[in-house]
Amino acid sequence: MLRTHSCGELRLEHVQTKVKLAGWVQRVRNKGGLIWVDLRDRYGVTQLIFEEGSTDKALLEKAAQLGREFVIQAEGTVIERTSKNDKIPTGSIEIKVDSLNVLNPAKVPPFIIEDETDGGDDLRMKYRYLDLRRGVVREKLQLRHRMMQETRKYMDAANFIEVETPVLIKSTPEGARDFVVPSRVNPGEFYALPQSPQTFKQLLMVSGFDRYFQIVKCFRDEDLRADRQPEFTQIDCEMSFVEQEDILSTFEGLTRHLFREVKGIELEEVQRMTFADAMKFYGNDKPDLRFDMKFVELNELAQGKGFGIFDAAELVVGICAKGAAEYTRKQLDALTDWVKRPQIGAKGLVYVKYNADGSLKSTVDKFYSSEDLQSWADAFGAEPGDLMLVLSGDAKTVRKQLSELRLKMGEELGLRDRTVFKPLWVVDFPLFEWDEETQRYHAMHHPFTSPKKEDIALLESDPGAVRANAYDLVINGVEIGGGSIRIHDRPTQQLMFKHLGFSEEEAQKQFGFLMEAFEYGAPPHGGIAFGFDRLCAIFGGSDSIRDYIAFPKNNSGRDVMIDSPSTIAQDQLEELSIRVQLKK
Amino acid sequence: MLRTHSCGELRLEHVQTKVKLAGWVQRVRNKGGLIWVDLRDRYGVTQLIFEEGSTDKALLEKAAQLGREFVIQAEGTVIERTSKNDKIPTGSIEIKVDSLNVLNPAKVPPFIIEDETDGGDDLRMKYRYLDLRRGVVREKLQLRHRMMQETRKYMDAANFIEVETPVLIKSTPEGARDFVVPSRVNPGEFYALPQSPQTFKQLLMVSGFDRYFQIVKCFRDEDLRADRQPEFTQIDCEMSFVEQEDILSTFEGLTRHLFREVKGIELEEVQRMTFADAMKFYGNDKPDLRFDMKFVELNELAQGKGFGIFDAAELVVGICAKGAAEYTRKQLDALTDWVKRPQIGAKGLVYVKYNADGSLKSTVDKFYSSEDLQSWADAFGAEPGDLMLVLSGDAKTVRKQLSELRLKMGEELGLRDRTVFKPLWVVDFPLFEWDEETQRYHAMHHPFTSPKKEDIALLESDPGAVRANAYDLVINGVEIGGGSIRIHDRPTQQLMFKHLGFSEEEAQKQFGFLMEAFEYGAPPHGGIAFGFDRLCAIFGGSDSIRDYIAFPKNNSGRDVMIDSPSTIAQDQLEELSIRVQLKK
Repeated sequence: MLRTHSCGELRLEHVQTKVKLAGWVQRVRNKGGLIWVDLRDRYGVTQLIFEEGSTDKALLEKAAQLGREFVIQAEGTVIERTSKNDKIPTGSIEIKVDSLNVLNPAKVPPFIIEDETDGGDDLRMKYRYLDLRRGVVREKLQLRHRMMQETRKYMDAANFIEVETPVLIKSTPEGARDFVVPSRVNPGEFYALPQSPQTFKQLLMVSGFDRYFQIVKCFRDEDLRADRQPEFTQIDCEMSFVEQEDILSTFEGLTRHLFREVKGIELEEVQRMTFADAMKFYGNDKPDLRFDMKFVELNELAQGKGFGIFDAAELVVGICAKGAAEYTRKQLDALTDWVKRPQIGAKGLVYVKYNADGSLKSTVDKFYSSEDLQSWADAFGAEPGDLMLVLSGDAKTVRKQLSELRLKMGEELGLRDRTVFKPLWVVDFPLFEWDEETQRYHAMHHPFTSPKKEDIALLESDPGAVRANAYDLVINGVEIGGGSIRIHDRPTQQLMFKHLGFSEEEAQKQFGFLMEAFEYGAPPHGGIAFGFDRLCAIFGGSDSIRDYIAFPKNNSGRDVMIDSPSTIAQDQLEELSIRVQLKK
Repeated sequence: MLRTHSCGELRLEHVQTKVKLAGWVQRVRNKGGLIWVDLRDRYGVTQLIFEEGSTDKALLEKAAQLGREFVIQAEGTVIERTSKNDKIPTGSIEIKVDSLNVLNPAKVPPFIIEDETDGGDDLRMKYRYLDLRRGVVREKLQLRHRMMQETRKYMDAANFIEVETPVLIKSTPEGARDFVVPSRVNPGEFYALPQSPQTFKQLLMVSGFDRYFQIVKCFRDEDLRADRQPEFTQIDCEMSFVEQEDILSTFEGLTRHLFREVKGIELEEVQRMTFADAMKFYGNDKPDLRFDMKFVELNELAQGKGFGIFDAAELVVGICAKGAAEYTRKQLDALTDWVKRPQIGAKGLVYVKYNADGSLKSTVDKFYSSEDLQSWADAFGAEPGDLMLVLSGDAKTVRKQLSELRLKMGEELGLRDRTVFKPLWVVDFPLFEWDEETQRYHAMHHPFTSPKKEDIALLESDPGAVRANAYDLVINGVEIGGGSIRIHDRPTQQLMFKHLGFSEEEAQKQFGFLMEAFEYGAPPHGGIAFGFDRLCAIFGGSDSIRDYIAFPKNNSGRDVMIDSPSTIAQDQLEELSIRVQLKK
């Protein structure tokens, strides 16, 4: 090794030891005949010292010429510092250097390589290898590493077998757009990259593997945005001979294990909520439970009092923001403007202040007496000092709007603490959702999800009412993962495809291999997949998935650093028997 | 869970316990009013028993109708067997069944699902999910799982960070053919699938990650054959501030750890051999060291005695097969025919028998006296009872031929025992190899490999003589992995590209991002990659990589089971702005 120790490990006990260190020059200070160099590697920072008089002159000159991010090797003796720095673990010692070797010089970096940097987003993406040198960024990738190792430890201990499923697979029409890969050996034909290993993990259950997992790259050729990458990682799992409860408890166990081992947090019980309740009380299938602020429906109390807007509304619904009665007029106007923005789309916002003195003041005093407003306050369980915010309109729309407002109020009131974690299982999802555009039902989870036994009778008469054995894990309002108990017999799977608008022929062509496998002894099975990038971001207390990916793509799907994708040679395309059409 | 226990865990201590098992019907025997069912899952086999008289009649009938591979659930009581089966861990007990539930019937499987099967290769590929139910096949995948977990344990403990590198990257012209992926968002442009994460791991070193690893899928669009898959897995690693010795010892440690933990074998010291010696003594850069049979060059002893063929040869070289002097004339003729096959291509084979009585008998007695032959025997260190086999011709060709013959003799003499493991580091590979076809030098490892310092002066004058800091790990004649110390500065990297025939512009276009990164403080670094599929096959004592892949592709690159690749819809292609040309 070009070093005897890392830059993070020397302590007082090493004083007088001869050492050799290697790393990057973080900082050079030159003052009063002394030169200090902060030498950095992945493990920490150690101070090197060169002193006029006691240090050889040529060496001193060499040290003075070091620039930021030079890679050097230094030999010397560990000495005790006169003025210690207790902010870093090596702060009690420094190295009196005898010899210095520049392993590689460095150009001046395009931005400051410190936790606080002056580099903008694009510049840091372009020089991602420099961005990754910053401690705050490196720690995110180290967290990701820890998460992977601990996930595997838990899964292995729980008898799950890690199996790699193929990346070059068959294109299927369901779900998002596939990336395709032309086959040279079979001209005119294409592989697809998997959006998930769904069918393979089900085949593994048919194979008797009993418990499968994989931490696996998946691909979706969707339009990009900041927090969606064309390639992403998921923790993918499947189990045989289980019911929903077994899967929830196994993966609650994983979640608990990760919080304990990676963050030192002992998670409280994971709540359960039906999809119907989540929509009714939070307007959202992934409620943020770090704060309460449940929806209260006011139709009975607020309608028929002459306020036309409420009277005409399908739903009048509100939330109670604890202790927000002191919001100023300006703040309230801003809130009203906020809900009226096109992204939210509300027509207006009704509020009722429950003042500290017990009086009630609203924007609709014209229509409602104090007694009326008191009845609302009672419904909300409001207390003096609280602020009630009420929206109205079409039920589906208004719930969505109020959900946004609830999150905003949570944010404004400081209730969305990034160090608090509230996991939740949302269960009993509908099997189908209606798609207005195509005028047909889509599988809400995917076409392999089994309907609840007691709802099968509704498949023909009222498909929209059929509930699925499907569940999502939500943490702090973010969907971490989802899964379902699968269909494991051909007749049910065929029925499902029929309801999804597949012809028998189409279903056979696309998924015949799976349905055929079901005929050779498929066990009851179910599974789950966690979005690993997102899980890491939640653990790291961040919104940005991109921070947790070593080499992310930008919003145009490009690796800016390596300039990808790019055009390729015509002869290679010809060998693949494909031709690029002229861009219109 | 649909079971209280697995089919592998019940023992005598469980007698009288009420249990519920679930699994597959392996076998049904019906004899003298008794029905036995072997119930199988991943964990083992447990015997169920139904007895006329004591078992309910309807239940007995149900049991009689069970077919092979039915998935069932059975409740009953653990009882002690009267005649125990000590071949299986559950052989002391059986289950007296009270109730039986067919979870899923099964069609008659297309081949026998036992360790010994009647299914041919194609049939088993088509129904891979049934093949995977066979114990011998499942164990291979379980071995693979174990290998993955233990690799990660070792790497994590040695401070390596697991980092996922991108799968959608930039196409580079070096190496094998890339699979390409058209970009919809950037029409006319393509991603490539990585042949290895080489440049990314080097960027991670520039990023200061110090020690990186990944178990990662890589892709090569090469012509297929039985033991080459278009997608394959490698253990990929890189380290900073190291010299070759550090990498060898770290990965010797990994190899040792895997043998210890997965196979319970304490590996002896890993030998080292230079590439030059490997070629000289074994005719091969991946010698199988389970047996000795070193090459002995006979030019001095065998030339100038009037045997024209030897006299005209650049090299006369042989091996000594211990104890093979008793080979019959028929066997020796067969060997001669074997070396003359076009795949080997030798003109003939000279042999010398060192008979038990001390006499020497050869096919070239006409040209060589007993004393001559005795001098050969001395050179070989031969003893009575041994057989010497000699080839001659162009040095490069004859070494290759003799290498094949050596392996064949090792096989015939039973010296290639699959339970013996002889790992070897081959070091000091040449930096370049001459390609006759393109009439230029190619990088033997890859263009990022650093030349040995002491050989840099030869770069201009004699490129073919420059040795690289490159090494391969070989086990039992199979190349498990290889790596090198990398170039870490722009000038050397540019020089390397120049020698490989890149114009400055081309080099900049393809690898400018890497050379630029080198200018911002790149540490000295090096790494290695192990072929994981091959490593698993070696551990499993098998030649076939395919056995160790859950869903392998056949020799046409197809997943026969799911019928991939396949044609895809024209509108999808149009959205990707690509057009499939008519097949010529």
